Amino acid sequence: MANQPGLEKVCIIGSGNWGSTIAKIIGNNVMKLDNLDKQVTMWVYEELIEGRKLTEIINTEHENVKYLPGIRLPANVKAVPDILDAARDASTLVFVTPHQFIGGLCKSLKGNIRPDCKAISLVKGVHFDTAEITLISDLISQELGIQVCTLSGANIASEIAREEFSETTIGFKDAKNGELFKQLFHTPYFRVNLVQDVHGVELCGALKNIVAIAAGLIDGMGLGSNTKAAVIRIGLMEMKLFAEAFLDGVCDKTFFDSCGVGDIMTTCYGGRNRRVAEAFAKTGKSFDELEKEMLNGQKLQGTITSFEVHQFLSARNRCHEFPLFDRVYKICYEGLPVKDIIAEF
Amino acid sequence: MANQPGLEKVCIIGSGNWGSTIAKIIGNNVMKLDNLDKQVTMWVYEELIEGRKLTEIINTEHENVKYLPGIRLPANVKAVPDILDAARDASTLVFVTPHQFIGGLCKSLKGNIRPDCKAISLVKGVHFDTAEITLISDLISQELGIQVCTLSGANIASEIAREEFSETTIGFKDAKNGELFKQLFHTPYFRVNLVQDVHGVELCGALKNIVAIAAGLIDGMGLGSNTKAAVIRIGLMEMKLFAEAFLDGVCDKTFFDSCGVGDIMTTCYGGRNRRVAEAFAKTGKSFDELEKEMLNGQKLQGTITSFEVHQFLSARNRCHEFPLFDRVYKICYEGLPVKDIIAEF
Repeated sequence: MANQPGLEKVCIIGSGNWGSTIAKIIGNNVMKLDNLDKQVTMWVYEELIEGRKLTEIINTEHENVKYLPGIRLPANVKAVPDILDAARDASTLVFVTPHQFIGGLCKSLKGNIRPDCKAISLVKGVHFDTAEITLISDLISQELGIQVCTLSGANIASEIAREEFSETTIGFKDAKNGELFKQLFHTPYFRVNLVQDVHGVELCGALKNIVAIAAGLIDGMGLGSNTKAAVIRIGLMEMKLFAEAFLDGVCDKTFFDSCGVGDIMTTCYGGRNRRVAEAFAKTGKSFDELEKEMLNGQKLQGTITSFEVHQFLSARNRCHEFPLFDRVYKICYEGLPVKDIIAEF
Repeated sequence: MANQPGLEKVCIIGSGNWGSTIAKIIGNNVMKLDNLDKQVTMWVYEELIEGRKLTEIINTEHENVKYLPGIRLPANVKAVPDILDAARDASTLVFVTPHQFIGGLCKSLKGNIRPDCKAISLVKGVHFDTAEITLISDLISQELGIQVCTLSGANIASEIAREEFSETTIGFKDAKNGELFKQLFHTPYFRVNLVQDVHGVELCGALKNIVAIAAGLIDGMGLGSNTKAAVIRIGLMEMKLFAEAFLDGVCDKTFFDSCGVGDIMTTCYGGRNRRVAEAFAKTGKSFDELEKEMLNGQKLQGTITSFEVHQFLSARNRCHEFPLFDRVYKICYEGLPVKDIIAEF
């Protein structure tokens, strides 16, 4: 299909579980939208599957057999192994890779994208150190000189791929971009809400994991449902306070949305951060041990984030304003007794 | 102990499970507060327990053996069987009875209370009909001509009586009254947050039960955690929209507080409305049958409230603005299939 001038054209950068799920949605949506080019490119990190190239499998069988098996991808989604080929004609970039890829991809793309390009980041991986908060959306924006929206919510790729109902939040700065991305992502089973807050949406996805550790500790101590609700709610309010204190353009509505209250519920009533923290409170084993036993040695996001956030707050003498975050850090790293998670607030 | 002039003096009106729990907290708190009379009266609906008067048992053994057995009440809480005796010297009335008692109690109290009296209502029982919303706080306020605060949150009396950590929300109009009630109720294990919104706080306690029905239906269909989070979040937003549309002085903060997001979590992840709705979706039995089987014939609050709210909205042609409330009503009363709870929003 030739590129049609004057139309928006989408390139999805990433083709894992989440990227492929999104490719299904966007591929279907562009077919119904007059302002969109019907062909969607998807950058695929090329690999061989039983001797065949993954791009070739996707383009002939319309299935990502490695990362989203059993789900048919629309035929108008074209897998492309070269990032410059994939993005060349695109006006709209959808970043959905592991965060480690972003730096390299942006270096390749710089100077090689359409001047009217805009992007959305679905990438997880806010980084905090003593000096600053590094948001993926800002990295992309600064490197490529374009506006970047964010998407986060109570979403599990495999459920959405099976068309189970859920919702998500898109944070935008410019309303026109927000509307465009809503057109691309919204379906009856994947409800998109818009908030004019790029940074708050992205930050929620990182900070929620600290709250999930707290919720798991409550579960592990066998405390009641109201204690747990209180701790989760206090955590949500610390997320909000943190975002308002250190980022620009954060709004209340973000925390009422799927990326806020929605995601905090699924993360704190299910999810692996909660589960491992529950085991920590029950068994007294270290997080290192539990990560080996329960996660094949993968690291928990919640403990890492609590460490980074502690560094960041500590450098500013502001830990005391975030007592729940502070206690999670101290329980994970300084031997504070688990029961102190609910010492007086 | 004689009444000391110039001090605030508390009368607790009600002595059930919740009233007795609150009596324990207030009785302890007044002992530490300079501006409070040390004696607290508690109006008790007199009954005989194995031949002894309940008031006499409470005043000698300092335990409400019928409604809160095993919990010691402070000795400065005096049980009084006559409402006028109980309230005569009080500047501060704490209403914590079943809602059916409020009309009669207010009639008795009218003209027989201190001129500087104010009250707080912990009573559940908002009533909706085609014409209006009747809030208990308004009933008390209008009947007695005094300001009335409200208290609601993720609270279970027995857990608070055992001093398990939880939090609650007090809605006030006049900041001075809000602060007074915070002094009376706040403890390290029962954290009180203040919001300047009397009506919103009270309404949350009623509308949450509709959302709990929806959450139970999702559980009954075996759907995923993100679908459930989406439905609960949409429900919370309909609660907020409803309060803003039909009541005065409602604020955002209320829905972030314990009475809002806190209570909706405990109600939708635990609680009997959720549980019976889950059984409804699983078994196809009627709510009438399930109430008989699971609740000894007691009526579910969520189904009744959804009926009343439907009447109220229907009379104003505004059902379509509240699709989740509307579907809960139609599933409970008009045979709409359960799966339609997540038809497109």
